[in-house]
Amino acid sequence: MSDIASQTSPAAGPLAGLRVLELGHFVAAPFCTRLLADLGADVVKVEPPGGDPVRQWGQLVDGHAPWWSMHGRNKRSITLNLKHPKAAAIVRDLAARSDVVVENFRPGQLDRMGLGDAALRAGRPDLVVAHISGFGQDGPYRDRAAFGVIGEALGGLRHLCNHPAGTTDLPPIRIGISIGDSLAGLYGAFGIMAALWRRDAARVGDGRGRTLDVALTDSVLSMMEGLLPEYGVLGTVRQPAGSRIPTAAPTSAYPCADGTWIVLAANSQPLFARLAALMGRPELAADPRFVDNPARLANVEELDRLIGAWTGTLTAADCDRRLEAADIPATLIASAAAVAADPQFRHRGMVREVEDPAFGRPVLQAGVVPHVADDPGAIRWPGPAVGAHTGEVLGELGLGEAAVAALRAEGVV
Amino acid sequence: MSDIASQTSPAAGPLAGLRVLELGHFVAAPFCTRLLADLGADVVKVEPPGGDPVRQWGQLVDGHAPWWSMHGRNKRSITLNLKHPKAAAIVRDLAARSDVVVENFRPGQLDRMGLGDAALRAGRPDLVVAHISGFGQDGPYRDRAAFGVIGEALGGLRHLCNHPAGTTDLPPIRIGISIGDSLAGLYGAFGIMAALWRRDAARVGDGRGRTLDVALTDSVLSMMEGLLPEYGVLGTVRQPAGSRIPTAAPTSAYPCADGTWIVLAANSQPLFARLAALMGRPELAADPRFVDNPARLANVEELDRLIGAWTGTLTAADCDRRLEAADIPATLIASAAAVAADPQFRHRGMVREVEDPAFGRPVLQAGVVPHVADDPGAIRWPGPAVGAHTGEVLGELGLGEAAVAALRAEGVV
Repeated sequence: MSDIASQTSPAAGPLAGLRVLELGHFVAAPFCTRLLADLGADVVKVEPPGGDPVRQWGQLVDGHAPWWSMHGRNKRSITLNLKHPKAAAIVRDLAARSDVVVENFRPGQLDRMGLGDAALRAGRPDLVVAHISGFGQDGPYRDRAAFGVIGEALGGLRHLCNHPAGTTDLPPIRIGISIGDSLAGLYGAFGIMAALWRRDAARVGDGRGRTLDVALTDSVLSMMEGLLPEYGVLGTVRQPAGSRIPTAAPTSAYPCADGTWIVLAANSQPLFARLAALMGRPELAADPRFVDNPARLANVEELDRLIGAWTGTLTAADCDRRLEAADIPATLIASAAAVAADPQFRHRGMVREVEDPAFGRPVLQAGVVPHVADDPGAIRWPGPAVGAHTGEVLGELGLGEAAVAALRAEGVV
Repeated sequence: MSDIASQTSPAAGPLAGLRVLELGHFVAAPFCTRLLADLGADVVKVEPPGGDPVRQWGQLVDGHAPWWSMHGRNKRSITLNLKHPKAAAIVRDLAARSDVVVENFRPGQLDRMGLGDAALRAGRPDLVVAHISGFGQDGPYRDRAAFGVIGEALGGLRHLCNHPAGTTDLPPIRIGISIGDSLAGLYGAFGIMAALWRRDAARVGDGRGRTLDVALTDSVLSMMEGLLPEYGVLGTVRQPAGSRIPTAAPTSAYPCADGTWIVLAANSQPLFARLAALMGRPELAADPRFVDNPARLANVEELDRLIGAWTGTLTAADCDRRLEAADIPATLIASAAAVAADPQFRHRGMVREVEDPAFGRPVLQAGVVPHVADDPGAIRWPGPAVGAHTGEVLGELGLGEAAVAALRAEGVV
C-alpha cells in the first residue's frame, strides 16, 4: 500500500499526453482503459483501499493474479474510499485535470456519491464521460445486476454457442472469456476517441465534451451480423450450428488420431477439390452429393463423416502439415501453451515477457492491439500495486506529503 | 447498377464530416467502416462491379442478403474494377480527398495494384491507412489465407469453446458469428480514431498520418484475459469449462421442464443463500460442500445437479420469473425472436425497423453502438445497391456524366 516511486517509462503511441481517469472495477471499464493506456494515455485508476477485486481473479500466486499484471498495466493506481465524504472533491479535482472519465458502476451510483456528469464536469466542462454498464443508463433493465453471462445471453450470442438441437443434452457453452465485458470496453474506447476527435480536431472540432452510454448487451447485439435482419425479413430464427458454419461446407473441427482436433476450411470449389485429392478420394469433388456448396451443405453430415474418417487416421500435427502443404486453410486448436510458442505471435510482439516485481519473474502478456506501425504503443509497466501512485497523483493536485498522510489517517485514501 | 440519387440523410454523430475510403470486402474492413459510418462518417465503399460477395451471404431474398441491409448501411457504394489499369489513379484521387483508407486485401495485394501506402498518400500525405488482415502485414503467416475460424483457433478462443475434456465427443464449437473478423474491425475503428486524434488535435496534434496493422489473430488474443499470464507464471494451460466459469459457482445454464435453458449467476454468498431458499433447500447455504465459493467449486458437479433438478421442474419462463423476484441474476437464452422483442433493446433503439427498397418492407437492424447520448449516430439509409453512388462520387472528383459513361464502357467502373 505504500507509495512507491512510479515505474513509469515515457509514454509512447498516438495517445501520449491524453489523460484518463478510471472509476472502474472488474473487466469492462478497466479493459477500456487498458486499450487507451497501451496506446500511450496516462490512465489514473481509482481503487478502493482494498483494491479492484480483479486483482484476485483467476489463478493466484501468493494472492496475486497474473491476469492483473496485464489487465492493470500502464496505469497509475491511487486509492480512494469513495464512501468517505471527502473523496468526491478529490475525484472532481482529478476529473478537472482529465480529458476523459471512464466508469462502470451501476447506473446512478456515481450520482449518489456526488459524482454525476455535471459534478465531474464542474472543473472541466468539455470532459468526455464514458459510462459502461450491463444494460445501459436507461430503460427497464437499467438497475439489474450486470453479469456478463446474462448480457451475452440477452444479446443473442449464447443461443448460438451450442451444438444443433438434438445433438446433445449438454448446455450451451460460455465461450471461456468475459467477451461481453471486453466488447463493451472496446466499444467504449472507440467511442471515447470519436468524441475526443470531434472535441479537439483543429478545424472541425467543436470543443464540446460528450457522454457515452455503452451497454454490454448492446455491444453483443452489435456483433450479431444477420441475426436480426434475417429474422425481420424472413422470420427465421438463427439456430446454433455447433462446430460448423451454417452457410458453407466443409468447415468444421475434425477429430484426429491423437484425440485432438483440426480446424479446416475447404468451402470453395478449388479448396474442396484439393482436400478430396489429399484424402485420396479425388472422385468426391465430382460426386453429386458434394459437387458445389449447396450440395455439400445438404449432405454435410456425410461429408464431415468422410473427412473425419480421414483425419482420424492422422495425428493432428501430421494432418496440419499435410493440409498446409496442400494450401488448404487449417490449423491446430491453440491452447495457452501453443499461443505462447506461436512464431507469428512472437514475431509480431504479441507474446511478450514483462518484468513484474509481484512475481519475481517475467509475466507473459499479450501485446498491444491495434499495432500502429509508425507509432506503436508499448507495455511500459505491469499492473501496479494498489495505490502505488497515490502520493504521486495527489501531489500533482498540489497536495503535499503531510496532506496525503492526513487523508490516509482519515481513511480517505 | 444504375446510379440512383443518393438516399443520404444529413450526417449525425461525432464523426460527421470525416471521410473514409473503404477498399474492403467480407466482414472485417466493412464492419470497421460500418462503425465509423454509424457515428456519422462519410464512407465510400469501393466494390468490384459484381459487388462485395457478402451481399449474398447468409439467407437471401431474391438474391439479396438481409444482412447486407445492416452491414452496408450508411455507406456510399461505387464500383471499380481494380484489375483495370485505369482504376488505381481513381482510387488515388479518392484517397486524396479522404482522411482514412481502410482495406482488408491479403497483405501486399494493394501494393501490386499500384495502391501501396506511398501511392495512397501521394495526394494526401497525412492519410491514416488501416490494414486489416488475418495474421498481420508481416511475419511467417503473413501470406496465409485469412479465414476467421483459423484465426479464432490460433488466438486461443476456440480451445475454450468446448465442454470439459471427457464430457463429450463433440467438437469445440464455433460461436456462431465471425467474431474474429468483427473484433479486428472494431480494433481498427478504435485505432483509426486514435490516429486521427493525434493527427488533428488542436494543441497536441502532429499533422502526421499513421499506418495501422490490425490482425484478426492479434485481436482475438488481446481479449484472452489471464490465458497467457497464467500460463507464463504458473505453467497452467487454461481448459474449456463448458457452460460454467472456472473460478465461480454456481454460474451456468440449467435445463428447464420445457427443454430450454436458464442462465443464472448466484456465485456470491448472499445470492447463493437466496437461491438455496428459492429452491426450498435453505440448508444448502450452510452445507459444508457449498458454504463458500471454493467449496462450491470443489463440489460443482453435485451443486449443478441439485440446481438442475430444481430448474427441471419449472418452465424456463416460470423459473426466470421466480429468480427475478428473488433478485438473483438470471435470464432466458435469447434467440433472434426474443432479441427482436426485448423491451430493453426496443427502449434503447437497439432494435430498429429500417426502410429498405431491396425488400419492400422494413428490415430489423441493430442500433448504433456506442450510444453517444448528446450526439447520437444514426441509421441514415440501408446498404445501397452495388454502385448506387458511382456517378455521385466520381462527380465529386470532377468527372462529368460523359466521362463516367466512358469509364463504364471501358469496364473501369
